[in-house]
Amino acid sequence: MSSSQINPPPRLLMGPGPINADPRVLRAMSAQLVGQYDPSMTGYMNEVMELYRGVFKTTNDATLLVDGTSRAGIEAALISLIEPGAKVLVPIFGRFGHLLKEIAVRAGAEVAVREKAWGQVFTPEEIEQAILEEQPALLALVQGDTSTTMNQPLQDIGAICRAHGVLFYTDVTASLAGNEFRADDWGIDAVTAGLQKCLGGPSGSAPISLSERAVQVIRSRRHVEEGIADGTQGRGRRIASNYFDLAMILDYWGPQRLNHHTEATSMLYGARECARLLLEEGIDAAITRHQLHGAAMLAGVQGLGLNVFGDIAHKMNNVVAVHIPDGIDGDAARQAMLEDFGIEIGTSFGPLHGKVWRIGTMGYNARKDAVLLTLAALEQVLRAGGADLTPGGGVGAATEVYQDATAQGSPR
Amino acid sequence: MSSSQINPPPRLLMGPGPINADPRVLRAMSAQLVGQYDPSMTGYMNEVMELYRGVFKTTNDATLLVDGTSRAGIEAALISLIEPGAKVLVPIFGRFGHLLKEIAVRAGAEVAVREKAWGQVFTPEEIEQAILEEQPALLALVQGDTSTTMNQPLQDIGAICRAHGVLFYTDVTASLAGNEFRADDWGIDAVTAGLQKCLGGPSGSAPISLSERAVQVIRSRRHVEEGIADGTQGRGRRIASNYFDLAMILDYWGPQRLNHHTEATSMLYGARECARLLLEEGIDAAITRHQLHGAAMLAGVQGLGLNVFGDIAHKMNNVVAVHIPDGIDGDAARQAMLEDFGIEIGTSFGPLHGKVWRIGTMGYNARKDAVLLTLAALEQVLRAGGADLTPGGGVGAATEVYQDATAQGSPR
Repeated sequence: MSSSQINPPPRLLMGPGPINADPRVLRAMSAQLVGQYDPSMTGYMNEVMELYRGVFKTTNDATLLVDGTSRAGIEAALISLIEPGAKVLVPIFGRFGHLLKEIAVRAGAEVAVREKAWGQVFTPEEIEQAILEEQPALLALVQGDTSTTMNQPLQDIGAICRAHGVLFYTDVTASLAGNEFRADDWGIDAVTAGLQKCLGGPSGSAPISLSERAVQVIRSRRHVEEGIADGTQGRGRRIASNYFDLAMILDYWGPQRLNHHTEATSMLYGARECARLLLEEGIDAAITRHQLHGAAMLAGVQGLGLNVFGDIAHKMNNVVAVHIPDGIDGDAARQAMLEDFGIEIGTSFGPLHGKVWRIGTMGYNARKDAVLLTLAALEQVLRAGGADLTPGGGVGAATEVYQDATAQGSPR
Repeated sequence: MSSSQINPPPRLLMGPGPINADPRVLRAMSAQLVGQYDPSMTGYMNEVMELYRGVFKTTNDATLLVDGTSRAGIEAALISLIEPGAKVLVPIFGRFGHLLKEIAVRAGAEVAVREKAWGQVFTPEEIEQAILEEQPALLALVQGDTSTTMNQPLQDIGAICRAHGVLFYTDVTASLAGNEFRADDWGIDAVTAGLQKCLGGPSGSAPISLSERAVQVIRSRRHVEEGIADGTQGRGRRIASNYFDLAMILDYWGPQRLNHHTEATSMLYGARECARLLLEEGIDAAITRHQLHGAAMLAGVQGLGLNVFGDIAHKMNNVVAVHIPDGIDGDAARQAMLEDFGIEIGTSFGPLHGKVWRIGTMGYNARKDAVLLTLAALEQVLRAGGADLTPGGGVGAATEVYQDATAQGSPR
């Protein structure tokens, strides 16, 4: 076959992620490789650990990257923490709760679930009640679930888990850097993420952080690979995956530098730059920026007469779901956005499939021009589809949000 | 903490891999992202499938990327093909045979092994005998094992497997593109690789190809993720990993485009460019190039008076292991190569640790200047360490190989 030099079309990615990578991240990724035990490489690995401690707001030693997409981080955490037969509680409020359940089941857990209708979140009382009823060893709970746009409050859950001797795992792929997250203050034992949402990088690297409690569980299951064995083995049941065996991955990232996989150097360069950019901006400033542009997009879609899906009080800053208006062909409209305006907005899964669009304002694309262009294009597409709307209603409403923010002295 | 813009030191990576990425691969990876269902992205995915059919010399539909390092590809193949309790035969002739065994054990297989002393390979007769004795469902066999530099002949093994109803899996991470490999002609049911050796890319993406027989086994274990379920489920035992569930990954890469992970776009761009470069050069030409520069390096290290480890007749083209001379501190010499000359050569694992160095000539670094620079620097380091050697003996012997090749009209 003949194939050409890579030349993707210019797109403004305003869906639920992935979004456009920050050009500085792509530049970092174009740096030449070094060997995996080169002092510069192990130095970069140590820097990545320290940078992501800042990103996750933790002092956890065990803060590193899993080499795969965000889902790889989830599976590494769950399969390493869950011994077969252990009880796991998964409160589900969207697609990614189902995913946590699915991965826990495959890891051999006895999984109990609680479910919320899509568009709602759990109260701490509901989660504590479920813990009392189920007596799990581990609670697995998504923070931001892009399938519903909801942001599950986590700040009170860690204390509940500690009080009942439960390990607390959360997936913050969709929410991190766009919404508040504090691993230590909130009593998180294990947290995983990805780069492709508010961190402004490509998919393919999964930052993870583990508390000392979590590390103890994982270390008890340590078994060194044959061919490089050093004679020290844990007593716990061996982790069912080699690639996701966090005990081995910790030995690779730790001072021992015991060989496991060959670190994905270019992705590590990218993950490092994502964290550097975030910490340079300041996490609080980045969250404020996502709040601002998320509020502008929310006002804008409402200004176009669209009805917002779900409990707005618990919506993530960085994504909004809107009902597809009656009479509008949702897929044709998304296609027109993409083909005529070069802008991607998102479709939906499961119970929302065909009913809502999801529009993101995250990472590099949490910007005024990106918000206003999206609203301007969406107005044209909706009008062409026959919607009855106020000309300029979307851009106007968003602009008011920006003007109010400027009047109040908000950043950006 | 303060961290600087990425700026790795210039290194010539002449170890067993990873090696320097081809600059054209890094440029491809710096392209901006598109959405995961953008027609340009699904087009690139289809191109990648077709390109790697060329690389693996196969017509297998099921040819795609696993998002992780080469080890992720191995685990995806084994965990998807092996039902718990199934018998797996692993002939081990180096570290990566141990790894295949380890992953198969974790996948729940009953694993039988045969072992060769490091530096040797198996005959087809030995493998057939082991198959007759063990009656496995799957044979898992490394092609090139960098730990020993050996290249296991595979061309007769597929027919033996077919005759006995055994599935045949091989890992070609270290050998592909530098040594002959023919998935279809050799009757391979599943093959996995990585980019960081002769393909000239970074670690982090694992090309894989599956025969129709392998796909049938995997499809029988298909279970769609909750939250996006479509009602069709297989009857086989569910694969113990979500991330490595090739039935789901096939649905993502297939016309159905059923969402699984978010494809690691930058790594896909890189993997695509690796294959384009290889097919542009021509696989046979690339193998000839690796033969030439491997022969020059072999002659060169011998010209420096170093003894080569293992069965040279079965050495991979792209890496050579040499005994560290008596009186030379192996780690100090490697450190001098790196710090004084910017050249990385490799240490060793397991029974060879501290006894041999491994020197690679692969991918972008299978080049005359890289070979001669490495030999020139090694001569200086050996002499400084007190070795008794012929001045210019390494570069001279390599140069003779190049002159002979030029006289015979060999490419490059």
